[in-house]
Amino acid sequence: MDSDFPHNWSRVFITRVEPSVEGGRWPIKRTVGEAVAVVADVVADGHDKLAVELIHGPEGGVYQTTRMTLRYNDEYEAAFVVNELGRYTWRVRAWVDRFGTWQSEFRRRVQHGETDEVLRVELASGAELLRELADGAGGAKREGLLRYARSFERGNAKKALEAGVVHLARDCDTRSGAVTSLAYHADVDRELARFAAWYEFFPRSCGDIAGVHATLDDAARRLEGIRDMGFDIVYLPPVHPIGTTFRKGKDNNPAVKPGEPGSPWAIGSPDGGHTSVHPRLGGLEAFDRFIKKATELKLHVALDIAFQCSPDHPWVKEHPEWFRHRVDGTIRYAENPPKKYQDVYPLDFSCGDWRGLWSALRDVFRFWIDRGVRIFRVDNPHTKPLAFWEWCLGSLRAEHPDLIFLAEAFTRPKTMYRLAQLGFNNSYTYFTWRNTKHELRSYFEELTQTQIVEFFRPNLWPNTPDILHDFLVHGGRSAHIVRFVLAATLSSVYGVYGPPYEHVKNDQHPEREEYANNEKYEIRVWNWNDPTSLQPLFRRVNRIRRENPALHNLRSLRFLDTDNGNILAYAKQDGANVIICLVNLDPFAVQESAIDVPLNALGIPSDGPYQVYDLLGGERIIWHGARQRVRLDPGVTPARILLVLRRLRTERQFDYYA
Amino acid sequence: MDSDFPHNWSRVFITRVEPSVEGGRWPIKRTVGEAVAVVADVVADGHDKLAVELIHGPEGGVYQTTRMTLRYNDEYEAAFVVNELGRYTWRVRAWVDRFGTWQSEFRRRVQHGETDEVLRVELASGAELLRELADGAGGAKREGLLRYARSFERGNAKKALEAGVVHLARDCDTRSGAVTSLAYHADVDRELARFAAWYEFFPRSCGDIAGVHATLDDAARRLEGIRDMGFDIVYLPPVHPIGTTFRKGKDNNPAVKPGEPGSPWAIGSPDGGHTSVHPRLGGLEAFDRFIKKATELKLHVALDIAFQCSPDHPWVKEHPEWFRHRVDGTIRYAENPPKKYQDVYPLDFSCGDWRGLWSALRDVFRFWIDRGVRIFRVDNPHTKPLAFWEWCLGSLRAEHPDLIFLAEAFTRPKTMYRLAQLGFNNSYTYFTWRNTKHELRSYFEELTQTQIVEFFRPNLWPNTPDILHDFLVHGGRSAHIVRFVLAATLSSVYGVYGPPYEHVKNDQHPEREEYANNEKYEIRVWNWNDPTSLQPLFRRVNRIRRENPALHNLRSLRFLDTDNGNILAYAKQDGANVIICLVNLDPFAVQESAIDVPLNALGIPSDGPYQVYDLLGGERIIWHGARQRVRLDPGVTPARILLVLRRLRTERQFDYYA
Repeated sequence: MDSDFPHNWSRVFITRVEPSVEGGRWPIKRTVGEAVAVVADVVADGHDKLAVELIHGPEGGVYQTTRMTLRYNDEYEAAFVVNELGRYTWRVRAWVDRFGTWQSEFRRRVQHGETDEVLRVELASGAELLRELADGAGGAKREGLLRYARSFERGNAKKALEAGVVHLARDCDTRSGAVTSLAYHADVDRELARFAAWYEFFPRSCGDIAGVHATLDDAARRLEGIRDMGFDIVYLPPVHPIGTTFRKGKDNNPAVKPGEPGSPWAIGSPDGGHTSVHPRLGGLEAFDRFIKKATELKLHVALDIAFQCSPDHPWVKEHPEWFRHRVDGTIRYAENPPKKYQDVYPLDFSCGDWRGLWSALRDVFRFWIDRGVRIFRVDNPHTKPLAFWEWCLGSLRAEHPDLIFLAEAFTRPKTMYRLAQLGFNNSYTYFTWRNTKHELRSYFEELTQTQIVEFFRPNLWPNTPDILHDFLVHGGRSAHIVRFVLAATLSSVYGVYGPPYEHVKNDQHPEREEYANNEKYEIRVWNWNDPTSLQPLFRRVNRIRRENPALHNLRSLRFLDTDNGNILAYAKQDGANVIICLVNLDPFAVQESAIDVPLNALGIPSDGPYQVYDLLGGERIIWHGARQRVRLDPGVTPARILLVLRRLRTERQFDYYA
Repeated sequence: MDSDFPHNWSRVFITRVEPSVEGGRWPIKRTVGEAVAVVADVVADGHDKLAVELIHGPEGGVYQTTRMTLRYNDEYEAAFVVNELGRYTWRVRAWVDRFGTWQSEFRRRVQHGETDEVLRVELASGAELLRELADGAGGAKREGLLRYARSFERGNAKKALEAGVVHLARDCDTRSGAVTSLAYHADVDRELARFAAWYEFFPRSCGDIAGVHATLDDAARRLEGIRDMGFDIVYLPPVHPIGTTFRKGKDNNPAVKPGEPGSPWAIGSPDGGHTSVHPRLGGLEAFDRFIKKATELKLHVALDIAFQCSPDHPWVKEHPEWFRHRVDGTIRYAENPPKKYQDVYPLDFSCGDWRGLWSALRDVFRFWIDRGVRIFRVDNPHTKPLAFWEWCLGSLRAEHPDLIFLAEAFTRPKTMYRLAQLGFNNSYTYFTWRNTKHELRSYFEELTQTQIVEFFRPNLWPNTPDILHDFLVHGGRSAHIVRFVLAATLSSVYGVYGPPYEHVKNDQHPEREEYANNEKYEIRVWNWNDPTSLQPLFRRVNRIRRENPALHNLRSLRFLDTDNGNILAYAKQDGANVIICLVNLDPFAVQESAIDVPLNALGIPSDGPYQVYDLLGGERIIWHGARQRVRLDPGVTPARILLVLRRLRTERQFDYYA
């Protein structure tokens, strides 16, 4: 026991580094141009000054070193900006700042009138430290240190108090006794992963005649209108050939009628599988033309990747070993007893040939990547092994760091968060089911005020082909406006399943929380240019989003206290750009509330008037002080998006949408 | 890239294990007989049932396995009791419960009237699983599994739903695809580390004549009285020879007068150093007699270990290399410019012979351990390297797992917490400076409702020889009662520097927050049996503590809302034993408040009356409902310690202190 001394030890301990996810096990997420503000707790015995630095850079690239500043309570901070796609790494290094400590003590000795005799002895100590540093330095720095040492030895106390000597000493510090933290990581995505508006539609419903299957060329003709509404990403349900075995009819009817098109998620037919395009959509050539058109319009295309097969999928014959079998030899269809989904064969990710299957699935992504797709909405990732996604997404992102993967995992929270940790950089959320003030506030506080904000990017959808919430059914147009504004402003990335939403088609299936006459099972026709629809709202809200940097981030979200349970109020900011959103969650009645504007936090002077401008409704208001009264009429202005101006402006300056 | 498949992977992820300190880096703390309630988050893809177990036991001993139960939200829990001193270890192991999943799905198939044909195929699958398990099992279990498999194969659905088969399958589970968490640790101390009352006094002041140095034999004569007041531990300031060079006089006067005894913390003289006893105290023989007497009385002795030397300490001559030197060759005394402590030489823990020094210091502990001391109050540990304590305390505890080390680190919070993490199992706190309701509540919520409660045991002191807070100075007797009750009930371990406190000697030094006529620098005389002092209060509070298990823990502390900023209310419980403390923080005026009793949390019926009994004042009260009104008169009852009884009792049953 007596010889078990520590092999090496340091006086310094780094006890915490933030941001981190599970102690550094998973990367945090950022987009190009964003900052990583690192805080480290560093402690040591006694009262010596500590030197703390941040070593950071793109993985495998050139690392930079930034001195960290003591904030308070042993917390040191420094920030850096990530400018490249891909993975960044950082570590914290800390040691005792011997010369800095000496100078600070020496200054106190001088200030308190220490005798010349004592000062002379202390100066000799300081010179000794400088000579030690000079031993490890070279050239001009070495000469500089020795010059200082000599003037110390001559008793020059003034020289010892110069900023120059401590800077030089710091420059030549040998970092003796330094400790270094674990490495922490950030995955840096393109801005589109953080700030984007998605628009979902079914290309086969892009024709003009009900029941007639449209092509991707028909769909391409809708792109200009979608772009004009201000969307960034068009998201297509699966475009592959659809199986006929156990095909579902209208509204998921197990008895299909002749001519019914089937669900795009029943993937695979003799025409091909996950790397083919449905012949009625125009095949791969039409797909290429669609991508080309979108690219010309500066629209991005997101494809749906659903790793499951119809019984007619080529893999069922080519690779029966990739599926689960019953003891009677039949392939297991999907089921959650007593529910059965005979039209879907799940893949067996743990099968003997899992390597072959995993490769084939990753090649599906690669196939579409090669055709120009960089954004994928991944269907039900939580029913496939998490280890598969970690491997698949990790290797694809190493090849293409600009990829965006949206996890369509409507499952338990911890699985959703883990999927985000291991590689998904956009995630569906519970937003669709959070409709009251309490629900919204507590959920978004969880998403923005905990470690979760570092790795989980909530992509908010007020509806999907699978989900039409009662709130939209009963609340009609006002509810649709409110939920759209919430989606577009609470997070910085959101999407809408556009056609039925913009026309407030809120007929619900009698048994399920989804649309009646669901486009998943039938071909519909939409009015793509209807000024009485919500299309103008989409256009205006997307413009407001684009023009206000406050709405480009999630992190600054802060709820304002209100005294009416139907009024939700929240603020976002980016520098001087401050937005306050007010939403009436009651689609039927006028609601009024006091709201508390956090003037200090938002940088608004508390001693004068300030002006707010409703970017949605056009109204201009002058406010004084923190407590304001607001009134929202669901028939007129169920929501307001207020631009806060710290000083008054003339009316002319407000011609925001002239 | 294509061949970089994971070497092995599991469908199961353990994403969190609690309790843990910094992800398992440091042990949690428990005492013998306490439970460790482990919660683990475990996720996997899909909807299969998971098997999760806790593997736990004393390090190097026999490990036990306990099945963990799914609570909700993917959280699994199990608990175990630690029965031995020393280190315990646990891990969580999880895998997919294949047979359990099969049975649960089969049950749903049966319940929903699946056809016999389908059930027969599924039973064959179940039999296949059982046969796989049988391959790895032996003896009766193997036979049992095969019997079940055969009845499955005969189509016996009833057998498949039996609890017996799933228990048997679980018993024989091969845990294929299991993942295991990191190892987590607990350091298990004796109960005295969690539940104890400390009494500090200066043995040299145990005589009957002012100014005359008493011996440890005189001090031993005081032990019976201290024990009768209900204290468990007597804590002695350093008992070593005291240096004469730069000795401090009365009230820290740098000009000492002849005959002044000096500070016990100026350790070392030609009579010896850290392993000697001051001759005027009677030397080592008297010390041994003191320990013997204390042990007879079932009192424990805590020694003060202060690793610093007076200029007269033998080590100064024997080991000059253990001290820091100026360039002029003199030894550096302690200083924090402009303050100078010429009577104290700090040790240089980083000196060339640090191994020799560290060994000698550890041997100081061993010396006193060999003389029967198991409890040490360590002076200023934060001015010595944290790595030294980790090594020293770790190796001593490996030899003697019953040791208690109280860290006297009045420094910044993160250093205090780190000292607790690396080995101190009792800690001084900021309690002494937390006097308002807000200060007390927020500090104790930090200590009890965060991870801190797992490793930091707050030992609360209302006063020390170094600290006499203004609140005690100005608040007089009532303030002394209040602060004593707070110390004795907020935490389960507390101490008091008794003699001046019990006599409400609250003369403060004119310049410092400490006692005037400080015993650190002079010999005083006390009345050791004074019924007008606070000695009867000490006796009563210690008895209340002993008789109420609720006061034996820190963890159950819960503050009650009050509407008066001067009334602090809090509850503690242990099973059916519930205590509510009410404290008037205003020593000058009667204060009244409503309090909210959390009936549900405390297990009190909300529909009937319940009774509270003031164990301190003797009053009996019947309450109905959660909201109560209380009134505390500082002149009469500045504090109440209420025993809560869930049902009414007759007056006779209340003769608590008859």
